[in-house]
Amino acid sequence: MDLTVSPFGVGLSVSEYIAVCHEIIEREGLESRLHAFGTNIEGEWDAVFRVVKECHEKLHEMGVPRITSSIKVGTRIDRDQSMDDKITSVQSKLD
Amino acid sequence: MDLTVSPFGVGLSVSEYIAVCHEIIEREGLESRLHAFGTNIEGEWDAVFRVVKECHEKLHEMGVPRITSSIKVGTRIDRDQSMDDKITSVQSKLD
Amino acid sequence: MDLTVSPFGVGLSVSEYIAVCHEIIEREGLESRLHAFGTNIEGEWDAVFRVVKECHEKLHEMGVPRITSSIKVGTRIDRDQSMDDKITSVQSKLD
Amino acid sequence: MDLTVSPFGVGLSVSEYIAVCHEIIEREGLESRLHAFGTNIEGEWDAVFRVVKECHEKLHEMGVPRITSSIKVGTRIDRDQSMDDKITSVQSKLD
Repeated sequence: MDLTVSPFGVGLSVSEYIAVCHEIIEREGLESRLHAFGTNIEGEWDAVFRVVKECHEKLHEMGVPRITSSIKVGTRIDRDQSMDDKITSVQSKLD
Repeated sequence: MDLTVSPFGVGLSVSEYIAVCHEIIEREGLESRLHAFGTNIEGEWDAVFRVVKECHEKLHEMGVPRITSSIKVGTRIDRDQSMDDKITSVQSKLD
Repeated sequence: MDLTVSPFGVGLSVSEYIAVCHEIIEREGLESRLHAFGTNIEGEWDAVFRVVKECHEKLHEMGVPRITSSIKVGTRIDRDQSMDDKITSVQSKLD
Repeated sequence: MDLTVSPFGVGLSVSEYIAVCHEIIEREGLESRLHAFGTNIEGEWDAVFRVVKECHEKLHEMGVPRITSSIKVGTRIDRDQSMDDKITSVQSKLD
């Protein structure tokens, strides 16, 4: 999953809220990697989506009135493929 | 929620698969509206996300090897706002 | 194209800004359709992307300090397909 | 910008095409970073969008019949902020 959480109504600096979501990901025991527009998360369907729900709930509790999340989620049944595999696969074509 | 389901490995025409997901939305009893790049869905968190999971499961059962979904999900605690409210709000500014 | 413009730092109500972008689309002479999470826009590559740039420029001029846009853009060389064709194609499978 | 290019009609393995887009980014002289669901790109508006257009054109030339790109683009006028600044800002809240 690639998750981008956008809190509205709390000003311009949103990194505090992203950090809270990151802690929820960690607590769930999922592997993740932060990038400049979101966070890659690796795990089973229910676990990764539980994280998104908890993140919305927690941010609303903290007083964020409005949240929009943008999510990309990929599943495949032909073979296993980790986040690292996807990156390595592109990089091998670049060399 | 705005949901865009992209099946890979089944050729160029994907409308058959989008229609299957649409039936899952209907069966769940959720209000939805199709647009040219996805489907707006209105409902409680667990219900709309159950639809996304069932759609991935069903498409894999139908033989789609790889699926990526792009999801926008919005929650707000300051007031109720339906899909129609959002559109009406913009349109009232245009008049 | 499907375009979702998110202005940050101007409070919770963003419909005013979406309406401004809508006027830019109209002025460019492009066909468009508003939905609850964005706007479908049909046209040539340079025209639709000019709209996105003008929308960011105009909103910054109006005092919006930070803007994130989420864009889906589709091109195909196998055949012509309008926004309406995409929707009709799914609906014909539902009947 | 965060750019995710999805080629349709060429089977399941798309890393070859992502690598081609990556070369276009490099040739344009833009800083970029690959992640598991796309590529972060830093630069001026016209330069980063030129890359997206060239990538679509090049992939169609290579025979890809249908392409959908998902783009997030952020602009702000209150202060300078690099891709690294965004990540560092979240990480400082985690420590």
